Amino acid sequence: MNDKPIWEQIGSGFVNHYYQVFDADRGQLGSLYIDASCLSWEGQQFQGKTAIVDKLLALPFRKIQHSITAQDHQPTPDSCILNMVVCQLQADEDPVMGLHQIFLLKNINDSWICTNDVFRLALHNYG
Amino acid sequence: MNDKPIWEQIGSGFVNHYYQVFDADRGQLGSLYIDASCLSWEGQQFQGKTAIVDKLLALPFRKIQHSITAQDHQPTPDSCILNMVVCQLQADEDPVMGLHQIFLLKNINDSWICTNDVFRLALHNYG
Repeated sequence: MNDKPIWEQIGSGFVNHYYQVFDADRGQLGSLYIDASCLSWEGQQFQGKTAIVDKLLALPFRKIQHSITAQDHQPTPDSCILNMVVCQLQADEDPVMGLHQIFLLKNINDSWICTNDVFRLALHNYG
Repeated sequence: MNDKPIWEQIGSGFVNHYYQVFDADRGQLGSLYIDASCLSWEGQQFQGKTAIVDKLLALPFRKIQHSITAQDHQPTPDSCILNMVVCQLQADEDPVMGLHQIFLLKNINDSWICTNDVFRLALHNYG
């Protein structure tokens, strides 16, 4: 039994799957997007699964590991699921960095697809 | 003339207005929400404009100032606007803190309403 709300189960399932695939073989993430999907990556904008996967593959590290600190999940009035993730990542031997990422998920043909993805490192956000 | 995409104009207009009102008199923010709106505040969940405004009014500081570092805006397939804000806040004489906040906006009766709001301080996200 799982007494968490359904949007939290679906959202956390997606988020955990996303980072597992990202860390193992990020070229496989295309199936989580559609051609209408938008990605904002540190302010750069990409649209469509091909452009998004090309961007992810072009990132300049060989190995990466994400570690999730906190997740928030909410249902939206249009039956989507909004997720915000706070996590840490380590790329190659670089220092650990904090990041925040949003995923907006929509059910399309019985699959939860990421229509909107926003990524920001937390690095520059200190006084 | 303004050559920014319309969702960016609407999104940044909302975000700037939100923090101006928050810093001046946060009890007035209720008009930006509806009864279906969700707020996640550091993992605590609130639904409806009354519960949301009650939470904001209960926050334990007298004065606060937000300073926006970066904003991302995206259109969604359901004609909503997704916004992620990276900013800094100073409450009373406390140290400056980083935060990330999401606003999902939906056009209802010709007004842009916040249906989903997620707030997380960036403080705990360091390795």
